[in-house]
Amino acid sequence: MSSAPRTPLMPLDEALSTLLQQITPSNGSELVATFDADGRVLAEDVVSSLQVPAFDNSSMDGYAVRCADLLPGAELSVTQRIPAGHQGQPLQAGQVARIFTGAPVPQGADAIVMQEQAELVADGDIPRVRFTHRPQVGEWIRQSGEDIRQGQTALRRGQKLGPAELGLAASLGLAQLRVVPRPRVALFSTGDELVMPGDVAPQDMPAGAIYNSNRFFLRALLHRLGCEVSDLGIVPDRRDATLAALKTAADHHDLILTSGGVSVGEEDHVKPAVQALGALALWQIAMKPGKPFAYGHVRRETQNGTAHFVGLPGNPVSSYMTFLLLVRPLILKLQGVENLVPECLQLPAHFELPKADKRREFLRARRNDQGGLDLFPNQSSGVLTSVVWGDGVIDNPSGKTIARGDVVNFWPFAGWLS
Amino acid sequence: MSSAPRTPLMPLDEALSTLLQQITPSNGSELVATFDADGRVLAEDVVSSLQVPAFDNSSMDGYAVRCADLLPGAELSVTQRIPAGHQGQPLQAGQVARIFTGAPVPQGADAIVMQEQAELVADGDIPRVRFTHRPQVGEWIRQSGEDIRQGQTALRRGQKLGPAELGLAASLGLAQLRVVPRPRVALFSTGDELVMPGDVAPQDMPAGAIYNSNRFFLRALLHRLGCEVSDLGIVPDRRDATLAALKTAADHHDLILTSGGVSVGEEDHVKPAVQALGALALWQIAMKPGKPFAYGHVRRETQNGTAHFVGLPGNPVSSYMTFLLLVRPLILKLQGVENLVPECLQLPAHFELPKADKRREFLRARRNDQGGLDLFPNQSSGVLTSVVWGDGVIDNPSGKTIARGDVVNFWPFAGWLS
Repeated sequence: MSSAPRTPLMPLDEALSTLLQQITPSNGSELVATFDADGRVLAEDVVSSLQVPAFDNSSMDGYAVRCADLLPGAELSVTQRIPAGHQGQPLQAGQVARIFTGAPVPQGADAIVMQEQAELVADGDIPRVRFTHRPQVGEWIRQSGEDIRQGQTALRRGQKLGPAELGLAASLGLAQLRVVPRPRVALFSTGDELVMPGDVAPQDMPAGAIYNSNRFFLRALLHRLGCEVSDLGIVPDRRDATLAALKTAADHHDLILTSGGVSVGEEDHVKPAVQALGALALWQIAMKPGKPFAYGHVRRETQNGTAHFVGLPGNPVSSYMTFLLLVRPLILKLQGVENLVPECLQLPAHFELPKADKRREFLRARRNDQGGLDLFPNQSSGVLTSVVWGDGVIDNPSGKTIARGDVVNFWPFAGWLS
Repeated sequence: MSSAPRTPLMPLDEALSTLLQQITPSNGSELVATFDADGRVLAEDVVSSLQVPAFDNSSMDGYAVRCADLLPGAELSVTQRIPAGHQGQPLQAGQVARIFTGAPVPQGADAIVMQEQAELVADGDIPRVRFTHRPQVGEWIRQSGEDIRQGQTALRRGQKLGPAELGLAASLGLAQLRVVPRPRVALFSTGDELVMPGDVAPQDMPAGAIYNSNRFFLRALLHRLGCEVSDLGIVPDRRDATLAALKTAADHHDLILTSGGVSVGEEDHVKPAVQALGALALWQIAMKPGKPFAYGHVRRETQNGTAHFVGLPGNPVSSYMTFLLLVRPLILKLQGVENLVPECLQLPAHFELPKADKRREFLRARRNDQGGLDLFPNQSSGVLTSVVWGDGVIDNPSGKTIARGDVVNFWPFAGWLS
């Protein structure tokens, strides 16, 4: 029952770089349909095997013309019409072609005139038109290769694929993409006080019991990061149960993620269990919320190598923030993503924080209509109301108070979640 | 072959409000597991049936004490230990309880002292401790109901659920949530020039053919918005095929979404087909990229009512931007979401735009390390390279040039995609 010695606090940046040093990006890959690749990470560069556009084409509905023909008052013969997907005939002097958006520009034509700038002067088999505008050479023509040249690298290895990237890959004719396999993550919680929603009704909750909320947001966050999640449930606070859960998890996963059981208190069976099966470092990170954090590895029994182990604090907001700030970059690096940090904004505080904290604080806040930040009044780490209310966190250095109007660093949640 | 009359351009805001006036939020609902509710929209308020925390509990590993006992130099008896999930005994004068994070504060105790501020002075059956800190009443105690009170509305109808919202609902004991049904969207493209990636190799593409890229990003965007997507493929540029596709789509979907076939050119069979089966308005929106846009409805044959119809322009970037600016709010409103517009940032331009456009422009740009915006050099709407390169768009009013250093409105893509 002796008190634990005081552990010196580790700066968050040091914790992150120490963590990332342990992570080797996956060198595996798999082919997936481009249709199903949203959220995945490219395992190889995508080099274009064609010109985009493949041919000079019209970017308007109108008339393909020869600029030299368009003298003031000239009336020209419309000798052909070229819809998108159809090939026209070469254009002779004095001729124009009716043309539609996306259609190939016929040989001899050097500009497009919008249909709104054309007047029909004679109908019939060969209609005649006059133009109210004199185009410059190249007007409304999209040149072949203007967007992407053949041989150009259009998407890079390590790039995370979103809707636009899938569209770009499709425009190069790629029905499949070679991506990094989904990280396999085993998720479990520890704690005798935890009850799964649905198992016990609120009015029947025993004294001291709380609902397990961390598994819900951790699972959703992991899915958003493209992970395959095995949910091992709530592991009882016993050494044998914890050892068994860790062994099973290590064999089939890249990362074992737990919440709870990593503080310096002595009621935790996770720490000695991880130490028995591998190694574990317990950090006290100089951040608030989110001080206790554990990183280690667990040896695999049925194959070589180890699984990464991360123990998050049990308090929901601490767990949420340490996930975003430490586990998210870990998972991205596992997938070979290079850009691990989202964009940070500088915005004025529309509140006061008169009391500084020793630790670097991540204050839940949201943008107001005046372009400033409002602070959620209850910064307790016990429940996620502040995270639901806020649309991001202020990153406030240790020991710093905030006066109204001070410009502070703000991380929108959207940048971490999209 | 007469030229279409010049249609006056409609401001984007007018287009959006006209569109939204046509949309009645769904009044249906369904129960889904909280585990599976990420990205869904709440169909009813979530009212807490419990206090969070349910009981006063320790927010530290340490000792539960009676502040009045903590006179300087006092040595106190540790008569019990209370792990999380266990209920302690009432604390008598002169007694303290070893307590762990999350454990209920025993009756009689009025503060927690962190274990780092305790010194063990006598071990044995009843150890004795001395404290290096004199706590205030309530210190490190999370009060019952501090985060959420019983009867409080914790989440509102129309709220979009993300990881944090799921965690909050779970902490209230909710294993299921009542959400709005997924909008059912039928997606098709038109255009004889379109080829599906995989159907024809790049080297074998016929002259004038291009790969269909719009379906790929539209499908991914619709999925991110929680829609159920029926992909009806590429419909040939023929009236009969278009009519058949529309009839099938209307019967089973809330929204029919097409790309291509909505410009004022005469090669489109979508417009007359929609008009024959319902109604259609063709808009020329004063935005760049993305001018042509069609909104209408298609009558259902097998049941009452109509399906919404939206025709997006065929150019990929036009299609992408009109989706984000017009279709995304439409789909959110269908689900009863009230907050339809993401946050806009004000950032300095680190480039020049010497030539103004008549239309409101959405310029693809990205934030640089100096906190400014760089512009993608090729603002062509033909291919998605600019959207992939950029991390958002500058919303530049019509007729406005941009000088280096001008503060401009910037919409990060992340706010639209998360």
